[in-house]
Amino acid sequence: MNAPLAPAPQPARIQADLDTLAEFRDPEKPGWTRRAFGEYGVAGRKWIAERMRDAGLDVRTDPAGNIIGTLPGEGPALVTGSHTDTVESGGRFDGIIGVLAGIEVARLFTESGVRPRHEFRVVDFFNEEPNPYGLSCVGSRAIGGVLTPEQLDLTDPDGETLRDGLTRVGADPDGALRCAWSADEVLAYVELHIEQGPLLERHGVPLAVVTAIAGIHRAVITVDGQADHAGTTPMDLRHDALCAAAETVTAIERLAAGGVATVGRIESQPGAANVVPERARLWVEFRGPDAGWLDARHALLESAAAEAARTRGCTVTVEWVSAVAPVPVPDRMQDTIAAAIDRLGHRQERMFSGAGHDAAHIAPLAPMGMIFVPSRDGRSHCPEEFTETGQVATGAHALAQTLLDLDTP
Amino acid sequence: MNAPLAPAPQPARIQADLDTLAEFRDPEKPGWTRRAFGEYGVAGRKWIAERMRDAGLDVRTDPAGNIIGTLPGEGPALVTGSHTDTVESGGRFDGIIGVLAGIEVARLFTESGVRPRHEFRVVDFFNEEPNPYGLSCVGSRAIGGVLTPEQLDLTDPDGETLRDGLTRVGADPDGALRCAWSADEVLAYVELHIEQGPLLERHGVPLAVVTAIAGIHRAVITVDGQADHAGTTPMDLRHDALCAAAETVTAIERLAAGGVATVGRIESQPGAANVVPERARLWVEFRGPDAGWLDARHALLESAAAEAARTRGCTVTVEWVSAVAPVPVPDRMQDTIAAAIDRLGHRQERMFSGAGHDAAHIAPLAPMGMIFVPSRDGRSHCPEEFTETGQVATGAHALAQTLLDLDTP
Repeated sequence: MNAPLAPAPQPARIQADLDTLAEFRDPEKPGWTRRAFGEYGVAGRKWIAERMRDAGLDVRTDPAGNIIGTLPGEGPALVTGSHTDTVESGGRFDGIIGVLAGIEVARLFTESGVRPRHEFRVVDFFNEEPNPYGLSCVGSRAIGGVLTPEQLDLTDPDGETLRDGLTRVGADPDGALRCAWSADEVLAYVELHIEQGPLLERHGVPLAVVTAIAGIHRAVITVDGQADHAGTTPMDLRHDALCAAAETVTAIERLAAGGVATVGRIESQPGAANVVPERARLWVEFRGPDAGWLDARHALLESAAAEAARTRGCTVTVEWVSAVAPVPVPDRMQDTIAAAIDRLGHRQERMFSGAGHDAAHIAPLAPMGMIFVPSRDGRSHCPEEFTETGQVATGAHALAQTLLDLDTP
Repeated sequence: MNAPLAPAPQPARIQADLDTLAEFRDPEKPGWTRRAFGEYGVAGRKWIAERMRDAGLDVRTDPAGNIIGTLPGEGPALVTGSHTDTVESGGRFDGIIGVLAGIEVARLFTESGVRPRHEFRVVDFFNEEPNPYGLSCVGSRAIGGVLTPEQLDLTDPDGETLRDGLTRVGADPDGALRCAWSADEVLAYVELHIEQGPLLERHGVPLAVVTAIAGIHRAVITVDGQADHAGTTPMDLRHDALCAAAETVTAIERLAAGGVATVGRIESQPGAANVVPERARLWVEFRGPDAGWLDARHALLESAAAEAARTRGCTVTVEWVSAVAPVPVPDRMQDTIAAAIDRLGHRQERMFSGAGHDAAHIAPLAPMGMIFVPSRDGRSHCPEEFTETGQVATGAHALAQTLLDLDTP
């Protein structure tokens, strides 16, 4: 290990930044609401650009609205970042700590002189959270080169296009289609994020090395039976679509082993107390770090649903409506992060991320890694979302050490 | 067996009556719609009163709107009847064949001279089907003496009271509260009805002796879990209310043995594909001929729901929202009907009625019995509802024989 030991982050500075950024919020909404296309999002990003300048970074905003702070050095660049927009009625930590930790690390590098030989970039990616146009990760898609003209034509419920929305907040939609980075300019990308789940807290462990960003396969299941009189139709002559769907729900719960599976929504028709349901629909998603596991869910789900339907004389269709492939973190990147955490003397575990992240869109450019810190009670996307400042500082320290280690192979 | 053999009904007359009454229908609705409080209901009842007069009956309309045709004789009276109102977009047989068979039997009695010594009444009970005020069996409740002033205050979605509705169609709401029959005046009540289920057709049997009108116990089950991120929350740390509810649905299906059980409606919240459901509700009903069986469902359901919730760290409440007791048909009445069917040489079976009937409200006055004829494909309350005229005639024959047998004990 030739790399120097990373200087320790200052929790008070991180706390002050968290507190100040939290003030950029829609006061009409519970919790913290700072939507990318709203006035608080615009104001918050302006403040972030100032904090980056204060940290000694050269700051520019790209056509997609990404704020990029650079500490000059040799190419290719070491990159960190995340996002500062929130969901509606969200919290103060999701995404935010990744950007503020990047700024704190920049401050440590400039103050201490212990800094990478390579160029160092901190990015506040524009609009990671799902937006009203039906898209997420707008900024990281643009940098990753996968934002499309068709996506710019997406409309929000009021009919505004994403193209017009971008223009309204000062971005340049046509430029956003041409602002992708090349793989040549990135040495590695490492993102600090809250876990958004309960494992680290449950285990009393401060840091996790992310093994993969889960893939998501979604399906809509439709069971067709027959509406019959709930009083006069004996059980053995029924074709109860809801009973078949209910058995399918419990089968899906069992099929989750190796990942997670959720039936988030169910509907049945006609929905009268005294009529046997003739149709039931389930909205299902499987998430997991392994593409083979996800693919294998298809036949297993279809077979379980068919069996539940068959025994009741119902029919079933399973429509796979979307499939996002998992994004693995390269083993060598996982090991580099693990070694950095070890060097700082912290306990750690490895886990996959069930949530999506900007990192998934940067992964095609360069080796990508993620570090998680605990989420209290596993809560996220809600006002109760919370991570202690000390835990954020520990995460920032691990991020800084990882960057220095990547700088000196 | 001292009673004479009943004369045979004439299918052509029954067919003609079925066809003519079917013309009293709302032409704007699919199938046959003749609602008690609508113009086609009023016109249809007027036509029924004329048919009764043609059959040689003395006809009166009571304050509750019941049309009562009487063939004079000794008291107490032998009574038959049913209803001629339909559900919206209903059929041509539910209730209707009980009234038309009663009129055909009256014709047979007056034409042949083979007639009961006792007075004979045919009743077209007003408004058996659930009405917009939220009540059913208005006429038979009035005759049974269980219509209440509070029920007259029920309102339809436009705010009209049942009281005003009754006045609008020419009935007398205050009189309806005082037009109950005394037990002294009724010797027995026998009603012919379509099965509204598939069993007779499946078994190729033309007639059923009804053993009881099922009781109905209804419950609303609420499962409370916890909303969590569907990606970041491992399966073993979830409190998935929908999974617990789904397991409860399959448990309810198993608890149906001995009667029927239906989950007609399900809801889950928040209903987003990527959020673990925090609450699920089930609307459940059990129907069965045995009060003890129905009572026993309570503990069995509560225990199954509690176990499904417990294993997932959820909580559950089961609220029993209504309980209508089953109405048994006295054994002696069942045996009298069975003997009458035997005498006519028809195959028969015994079954309980899963649907409610006017007979349930007449049962407190006198021994009550019911005869079922087949329903094609078990369909009812829909345009496809169908029973062959020959099958109706066979039922009318069994009704006539039963009445003659009851007349001569």
